[in-house]
Amino acid sequence: MELVTISDVRAAAERIRGTAVRTHALAQPWAPGLWLKLESLQPVGSFKVRGAYNMIASLDYEQRARGVIAYSSGNHAQAVAYSARRFGVPAVIVVPDVAPRVKVEATRSYGAELVEVPIGEHEAKAHKLAAKRGLTLIPPYDHPAIIAGQGTIGLEIAEDLPDVEAVLVPVSGGGLASGVGVALKALCPGARLIGVEPALAADTTEGLRLGRRVDWPVHERARTMADGLRAQPTDLTFAHLRKVVDEMITVTEQEIRNAVRTLARDARFIAEPSGAVTTAAYLSHRDAVRAEKTVAVVSGGNIDPDMLTRLLK
Amino acid sequence: MELVTISDVRAAAERIRGTAVRTHALAQPWAPGLWLKLESLQPVGSFKVRGAYNMIASLDYEQRARGVIAYSSGNHAQAVAYSARRFGVPAVIVVPDVAPRVKVEATRSYGAELVEVPIGEHEAKAHKLAAKRGLTLIPPYDHPAIIAGQGTIGLEIAEDLPDVEAVLVPVSGGGLASGVGVALKALCPGARLIGVEPALAADTTEGLRLGRRVDWPVHERARTMADGLRAQPTDLTFAHLRKVVDEMITVTEQEIRNAVRTLARDARFIAEPSGAVTTAAYLSHRDAVRAEKTVAVVSGGNIDPDMLTRLLK
Repeated sequence: MELVTISDVRAAAERIRGTAVRTHALAQPWAPGLWLKLESLQPVGSFKVRGAYNMIASLDYEQRARGVIAYSSGNHAQAVAYSARRFGVPAVIVVPDVAPRVKVEATRSYGAELVEVPIGEHEAKAHKLAAKRGLTLIPPYDHPAIIAGQGTIGLEIAEDLPDVEAVLVPVSGGGLASGVGVALKALCPGARLIGVEPALAADTTEGLRLGRRVDWPVHERARTMADGLRAQPTDLTFAHLRKVVDEMITVTEQEIRNAVRTLARDARFIAEPSGAVTTAAYLSHRDAVRAEKTVAVVSGGNIDPDMLTRLLK
Repeated sequence: MELVTISDVRAAAERIRGTAVRTHALAQPWAPGLWLKLESLQPVGSFKVRGAYNMIASLDYEQRARGVIAYSSGNHAQAVAYSARRFGVPAVIVVPDVAPRVKVEATRSYGAELVEVPIGEHEAKAHKLAAKRGLTLIPPYDHPAIIAGQGTIGLEIAEDLPDVEAVLVPVSGGGLASGVGVALKALCPGARLIGVEPALAADTTEGLRLGRRVDWPVHERARTMADGLRAQPTDLTFAHLRKVVDEMITVTEQEIRNAVRTLARDARFIAEPSGAVTTAAYLSHRDAVRAEKTVAVVSGGNIDPDMLTRLLK
């Protein structure tokens, strides 16, 4: 299997310039030794715009003009809708009917056509619609262009903090961790890449220990409040993860809640639970992080307002 | 009276590099035409670190080694404490006993010596202590080095968005608006500088209309929830404001509340009420802003957690 290379990541960085924000690793005086990379500052509120825009930009003109389609309950949907609008091409998003309203409405606001289907059917429906209408499917993580796009985060970390010792990234489908890992291993070979999962959706932690993908039932993974971290790696992303992830840390729901609250109070920005897991790992598992200079990737900030109010109490 | 020049601002930019974060004007897809400059991302959660650090860095070695003192109930106190610690010199902060606890505790956490006195006495007490202990007073706005430091925000705006048409800045003691104005008029002469005040503390709006400083009773200014905007210009800052401010907009308390909530929900970061007034002006007074490209300076994010929870409801 061919893996993504640092050249792919560099090419992605050129493509996304001007669309994705070049975020900066920000030192946190309340936690000396911790730098935060705030992907919540992206125009769609998450890192997903990097991969989605990179893939759409990589399509040939005719493919792109026919339009794109994605299945996603959340941040990827917004990223595809936003990126398609930047190119002025149609986007169809298939969402499960249980998707968080705040994310569905945001997706609609970027001008995408929304198709709601029962949960469990959205992936199949997207493939069917893609074939029927000649749309290109933009997958959430299972594609080299997506991995390369997310990898631009690693490129920026290496520029900002070349002597970083540990980088914390959330792991779900594995696109983000794969891409960041490719960049980091090429540019900062001394740094450890630490993947973070909720303990309630820790399939990758188990899979990497066993050396093979494992499948956790969807109802088990659905228990975590980190709704962006309920997916599992594919063959492609798992192959990357085996090569680039040095360690995994799992965090409890309480640790995630505490991290959301701490980020709001001490760092003055809003992280969604999936984005806060890396801060949770840093604050609650310092022994496992073992580093003088740590970057935590805060992957997104799209949180339901009611949940935010509850978490801040 | 000698006013601050663009050269002073450029020199300040060199001094503060590596201490103050170089923030970026971020486009907001939920409000096309609006870019936000998030000073809440500064290490102390507000722009105040720019001026305070610039002034401390401008002192000669012996002055600095003796230590610094400031009187402030809020963000300036944190900025002086933080900046002094960067130089390893002592800082004394005189705070009124009614100061927001979250700001007082943050100041203490940066290693400053705190002296609490009844409100109304803190300025006099600071002067007395400065004389007695040989400390240099770092004023919150009434000094060219402070104005030049805050002006680095204008320098960065001009770099990020050279064709900006309107820049919104909060006005209180006037250091921020003066500095940003100096940079903007030098580098983007076509852009309008719009000062924003709470209607409940609109002394500068009245003063600029009359062409002279006016004095609002402190109990009147204390009515606004924007606790960082209760100060008034001095002769020095008012002279700058007369020259660089094109217009003023006043906002209601309800408009401020709505802006804090909108920033949390749509832009995913936390602004304190004083920092949210510029967004409030943009959202609620679009006719007065009249621009295709507007930068709103969000001056800080240090808000009491209880107030934040209340505002998000």
